[in-house]
Amino acid sequence: MPIKTIEYKNGKLKIIDQRKLPCKLVYRNLSSVNDIKGAIKTLAVRGAPAIGVAAAYGVYIGIDNLRIKGKKIFFRKLNVLIRHIETARPTAINLFWALERMRKVAVKNREKPISAIKRLLFNEAGKIQREDEIMCEKIGRFGARLINDKDRILTHCNAGALATAGSGTALSAIYAAKKQGKKIKVYADETRPLLQGARLTTWELMREGIDVTLICDSMAATLMKKAMIDKIIVGADRIAANGDFANKIGTYNLALLSMVHKIPFYCFAPSSSFDFSIKNGESIPIEQRDPDEVRKIKDFFCAPKKVKVYNPAFDVTPHELVTAFITEKGVFRKPYMRSLKSLKGSKS
Amino acid sequence: MPIKTIEYKNGKLKIIDQRKLPCKLVYRNLSSVNDIKGAIKTLAVRGAPAIGVAAAYGVYIGIDNLRIKGKKIFFRKLNVLIRHIETARPTAINLFWALERMRKVAVKNREKPISAIKRLLFNEAGKIQREDEIMCEKIGRFGARLINDKDRILTHCNAGALATAGSGTALSAIYAAKKQGKKIKVYADETRPLLQGARLTTWELMREGIDVTLICDSMAATLMKKAMIDKIIVGADRIAANGDFANKIGTYNLALLSMVHKIPFYCFAPSSSFDFSIKNGESIPIEQRDPDEVRKIKDFFCAPKKVKVYNPAFDVTPHELVTAFITEKGVFRKPYMRSLKSLKGSKS
Repeated sequence: MPIKTIEYKNGKLKIIDQRKLPCKLVYRNLSSVNDIKGAIKTLAVRGAPAIGVAAAYGVYIGIDNLRIKGKKIFFRKLNVLIRHIETARPTAINLFWALERMRKVAVKNREKPISAIKRLLFNEAGKIQREDEIMCEKIGRFGARLINDKDRILTHCNAGALATAGSGTALSAIYAAKKQGKKIKVYADETRPLLQGARLTTWELMREGIDVTLICDSMAATLMKKAMIDKIIVGADRIAANGDFANKIGTYNLALLSMVHKIPFYCFAPSSSFDFSIKNGESIPIEQRDPDEVRKIKDFFCAPKKVKVYNPAFDVTPHELVTAFITEKGVFRKPYMRSLKSLKGSKS
Repeated sequence: MPIKTIEYKNGKLKIIDQRKLPCKLVYRNLSSVNDIKGAIKTLAVRGAPAIGVAAAYGVYIGIDNLRIKGKKIFFRKLNVLIRHIETARPTAINLFWALERMRKVAVKNREKPISAIKRLLFNEAGKIQREDEIMCEKIGRFGARLINDKDRILTHCNAGALATAGSGTALSAIYAAKKQGKKIKVYADETRPLLQGARLTTWELMREGIDVTLICDSMAATLMKKAMIDKIIVGADRIAANGDFANKIGTYNLALLSMVHKIPFYCFAPSSSFDFSIKNGESIPIEQRDPDEVRKIKDFFCAPKKVKVYNPAFDVTPHELVTAFITEKGVFRKPYMRSLKSLKGSKS
């Protein structure tokens, strides 16, 4: 059973502090909205689905801590709170989607007493979390159908249990395939600058007894040329209506390599990662992060301290390069403008 | 004037210890063949042309230290010495080329007294060094013709002064273009695992007042998609007769990206980097290096200590992806099987 990344316990959100992995498995108990926003911002908790779950609990914990009596102030504070959490990170749509679900529950029940609204907010956060767990399971089952015995699979960043409240998105398919008795070999891109592949994916897969080999991001092309890769699987932070999607920087590179080497390229995500309000990838906001993430590793400066740096956290992969999207509702193939439409209505 | 990476001084080979850059500029004086072989093996001195120069001096210093009287022993020891240095690194052809020049000088003058042969070996090492300086100058001049004012140029690893006895190969063209008054913007791939781009290329370019921005290797694709790159320039460790060439891991990836995004891709190398004894890239031996180079950075383990690692130091780029080769003899374009032939005879 893959590790639990995020759990609500005794009034606090218990998360694995992913900045400490793989050296140490450290849990943190977050008891305020600022704790939770900070954890999202600093990538203590990361991965689009996990960010959504954390944000939902952030709303509940934040408003519960305030102990407000008047309904008007309650709703004003609730909106401030939601807008506050919204600014934690700009790209993953799950953050906004989860916050919107929380806002809607409160608004829909605005006639009820504050204590009842709080209980409903708590229930909604729990629902988002449980839905995510179930989505992971379903994504894994659909994904496993695409994986053959002895497949050698390349993945980027971490789209595993550490990125969700469940067993992961892309990696969930690996876990499901393993349960079916398929023998899989995984190659993990280290995923600079923050090394989520080296630190998290290898750790998570080794813990589950999956055969994993670590490579630098720039080595993927050579593996493909040597016919060492059968499939490429990645997650997504936001998917536009046409199937263009944002994911960890380096994903677009892999997608191009898959095209040149004729290797299937699969994107795994729950329906909550789809953003039908935007037509294509050009409108997805891309977060620029601190130059020091590239200049130094841990406390070691591996570049001149004042060197200019370009550090986008994500890139956008055009839908043409995607062989299929795997969601909890099934596998979606081209043309995406048509196939993805069915997700639009069903998105909770 | 770009920095001097390698110099013979008072019986010792003075090198910049490139493992310490960019934090500290440390010089080391190498006074034995083992010192020099060790420096090549551990990448204290690196870059195909600089390795050639260091190896040549290694032969001289090694044989001079032995103070042998008999001619027969002298030649036996000389061969042992050369074979010893040969095993330092397998890919860069310049190592073998320089050693072969040293061996030939000794054999050609075998009738002369040992002291005279030693002097000739010393002279040959000096000649290899000075030729390298001149080659860098010429490569830079030919290369600068391909560079336009305001070009935004992406480079990988370090093909600069730190990789040669002169002003570099690919970066020499940047220096020459700057002298011509052209304003250039350089993007430097950090070049995992050993970060030669982050540590060396940025340091060297900043020292020369060149506008340089550091990126992670996986970001190059996004820059190209956003039309932020006009040209890609790289060095080479060995070039086969058909133009396939080995260079730092990640080069093949860049070459593919250049093809997809229709960006000129230039390979810079002295004629000593060509190996006409092999037909194509498949026969170039590729060095596999220590897994810990990927698992840890400095002393920090950024991956589980026992995770499997695939760590080739180089990859092979097919000649079809190269827009032109720039050597000290000029610019060579397709079809390479024909155009490169003229280099074959002229190679010293």
